[in-house]
Amino acid sequence: MRLTDYTDYALRVLLYLSVRPAGLSTIQEISDAYGVSKNHLMKIVQQLGELGWVETVRGRNGGLRLAEHSGALTVGEIVRKTESDFAIVGCFGAADEGQKGCVIESQCRLRGVLAAARDAFLAELDKHTIGELASPANELARLLNIPNLAPLPAGQFIPIRDSSLNET
Amino acid sequence: MRLTDYTDYALRVLLYLSVRPAGLSTIQEISDAYGVSKNHLMKIVQQLGELGWVETVRGRNGGLRLAEHSGALTVGEIVRKTESDFAIVGCFGAADEGQKGCVIESQCRLRGVLAAARDAFLAELDKHTIGELASPANELARLLNIPNLAPLPAGQFIPIRDSSLNET
Repeated sequence: MRLTDYTDYALRVLLYLSVRPAGLSTIQEISDAYGVSKNHLMKIVQQLGELGWVETVRGRNGGLRLAEHSGALTVGEIVRKTESDFAIVGCFGAADEGQKGCVIESQCRLRGVLAAARDAFLAELDKHTIGELASPANELARLLNIPNLAPLPAGQFIPIRDSSLNET
Repeated sequence: MRLTDYTDYALRVLLYLSVRPAGLSTIQEISDAYGVSKNHLMKIVQQLGELGWVETVRGRNGGLRLAEHSGALTVGEIVRKTESDFAIVGCFGAADEGQKGCVIESQCRLRGVLAAARDAFLAELDKHTIGELASPANELARLLNIPNLAPLPAGQFIPIRDSSLNET
């Protein structure tokens, strides 16, 4: 029983961005930090953007950052969106997929037990937000080679959508 | 997230045998009942025999039956033995498999959350025995084409290991 690599990497991207609350990150940096193929991450980042969980700033100094409320996403919410298939066994959703169902389906209690186990799995993941897991932040930042965690003092905040400031 | 077909079919074999408490079943009958390849089932039945959960009676009138205490097996116990891999994500057991671990492993709380979710999944499965799931027995027997559920009266019980009696 495994989650897909797609889900695994999506969680890692969101964790990376949660550890880096200020500034923009690039897919290359995340790819280098985890030693994971950049191609894999590009598709994932695109979906995370479509879901509104990650914001993308285009341009030469562009990059990614966590969207404002994404730190409050639970692991369960994320996994439900990124995991393509929660059919624990073949008979789940067989009809939807045009597959042959199981002959005992109408009377099968095992099916209900497996569904309850899947729900228990997700309920456990719902107890934790990705923001909460971005801790200990300094240690994680060090391991991920995130250079500078200290937020700028309030007055010096650079609006990262204004790329002209980054190009000086 | 899926269990393997191997686990799915192992559960179905044990359920079939639980529904048929008297007499012997053949792999062919189970294969026909579920519409599942006999070749798949042979390997599974061999493992179930090695685990002592199923007894095999050899010979022309041989077949399978549930071992005496196997009705009390929980779904969790079964799945733990039949499922080859409970590494929910790549970093679980990566070291054991000689794989590259994840750079944040030493500080990663996500790993613990995923392990807790896996444990919650199995704990749910531990609440139910395969014998308990073999119900409603008459309905399941009908769907599985199991011919006669009525146990013989005590005095007429045929010791099924004595194949000479079955060959008359």
